Amino acid sequence: MGRRSIDFPAWLADRAQHVEAVLDQLLPPASEIPCRLHEAMRYAVLGGGKRVRAALVYAAGEAALPAGVAASAQEMALDHAAAAVELIHAYSLVHDDLPCMDDDALRRGQPTVHVKYDEATAMLAGDGLQPLAFELLGLMPIAPALIVQATQLLARSAGSLGMVGGQAIDCESVGLTLTAEQLRQMHSMKTGAMLEASVLLGGIVAGAGSAQRQGLEAYASAVGLAFQVVDDILDVTADTATLGKTAGKDAAGNKPTYVSILGMDGSRELLKELHAQAHAAILPLGPPAAHLACIADYIVGRDH
Amino acid sequence: MGRRSIDFPAWLADRAQHVEAVLDQLLPPASEIPCRLHEAMRYAVLGGGKRVRAALVYAAGEAALPAGVAASAQEMALDHAAAAVELIHAYSLVHDDLPCMDDDALRRGQPTVHVKYDEATAMLAGDGLQPLAFELLGLMPIAPALIVQATQLLARSAGSLGMVGGQAIDCESVGLTLTAEQLRQMHSMKTGAMLEASVLLGGIVAGAGSAQRQGLEAYASAVGLAFQVVDDILDVTADTATLGKTAGKDAAGNKPTYVSILGMDGSRELLKELHAQAHAAILPLGPPAAHLACIADYIVGRDH
Repeated sequence: MGRRSIDFPAWLADRAQHVEAVLDQLLPPASEIPCRLHEAMRYAVLGGGKRVRAALVYAAGEAALPAGVAASAQEMALDHAAAAVELIHAYSLVHDDLPCMDDDALRRGQPTVHVKYDEATAMLAGDGLQPLAFELLGLMPIAPALIVQATQLLARSAGSLGMVGGQAIDCESVGLTLTAEQLRQMHSMKTGAMLEASVLLGGIVAGAGSAQRQGLEAYASAVGLAFQVVDDILDVTADTATLGKTAGKDAAGNKPTYVSILGMDGSRELLKELHAQAHAAILPLGPPAAHLACIADYIVGRDH
Repeated sequence: MGRRSIDFPAWLADRAQHVEAVLDQLLPPASEIPCRLHEAMRYAVLGGGKRVRAALVYAAGEAALPAGVAASAQEMALDHAAAAVELIHAYSLVHDDLPCMDDDALRRGQPTVHVKYDEATAMLAGDGLQPLAFELLGLMPIAPALIVQATQLLARSAGSLGMVGGQAIDCESVGLTLTAEQLRQMHSMKTGAMLEASVLLGGIVAGAGSAQRQGLEAYASAVGLAFQVVDDILDVTADTATLGKTAGKDAAGNKPTYVSILGMDGSRELLKELHAQAHAAILPLGPPAAHLACIADYIVGRDH
């Protein structure tokens, strides 16, 4: 796989397929006791999704890896980091779909975990996926000090000041009117924190210096927000079949969205700004950041 | 605090009070956004519990620390490790009490988290406590390689091959007849894994060698099982007021217990054997293991 391939869709598909194989190998087999739990964990994680977070780990790793480094250890470490962020993402979807949260029956066009299995199994599957993510980071063949940095980053990004905190604010905001700033804060925790962590984990594994990390951080922050603005636009403009989940749900559930606060035109304007910010942030990283640039275009342009 | 104090109840009370203060300081304040989530996390963790896991961390640390080591870094590291195991334990109780699991309204004589707050907040509080545990391990002022070992141990013990796996087997076993061996396997995962992790974390932080670790492992395994046998005996013999949770619940819920499989006499006999095994395992560690010995006596003799 060429590190500076311009055939981005093929690269993205390759990375998605690759991390799927890595996850398949690193998740406990369904034949291992407790079998039903492990089946549910595998069902929650495997079989698709866009794997945007994994792609960000790999692309940031490429962007920060010094030229000419042989890097087979880094490749394995990137695999573990990519798998870890996908595990955290998968667990958050399983819990988010539960009746006490969004009560969603459909995810990627398939029955959600608690529908396919049961609520207790879905909760425990999520509870089991989370520590597995931390275990995978610990197995990365890189300096222990870098593993500790990666673990800290993942823990903070997944926790009550990151993803889980954003979900809590989201729950508390149903029926309330948020300002654009409060909405930005909520999304930067709920979705942005883990997208940002994905980019920074790639940087940590590749041994990025502080200038590189700054560029990656600015990129990640813009892309994380852009992701949510697109989600909110799609919730209004796309249909359920295209999305693979119930469309119009946020509007119907009286949840504040970028479209409900800024309007459709204002949301598209914000999206354009974030897109430009993402590209500007990685300019100093040069050609190795080509896939990061493509991912920004992809996130802004996606229709599901 | 004397390291070889024979006033064990005072030592245990001191350690419980100490880890309570550590947790109070390390948990996000309730004034931090999202406030309701942080309130619920603090409610779930603070205000009591026996803190047996924290005591095991401290006692194992004492047992394995080389004589004469000044150890202020180790003391801080033990605080973080003790807090981490208490956070994992607290999150597991919050999720276990949810309607889709045990549906329990009372815990330590107080309303459970989902009763006091709501189900979504309880689930998210648990989801937020788990990564905080890993974050605390990452902050231990010890060699990064030891932090990585500690993180791996906690991740495995809390995951689908440890605590969460044991809970899943427990859920699947309602109404089924388990053999004594299957019951032992379930409990060694559900309760034993984290009790064992507590002991071994203390050993890792104190820099235990492999012989010391072997002794700690054998002790932990016996004590972990003894803990559950006592729980099952108390479920039959104690009343709700003494337990601080609903007595007779397991028997009423048709869950297999040691008492239902081995009978009361057989359970007491097994308990005696495990007690002896625990003491034998730590004999080679000598006088610094005095508090570990006392904790074994305490676990076997407790009445709630």
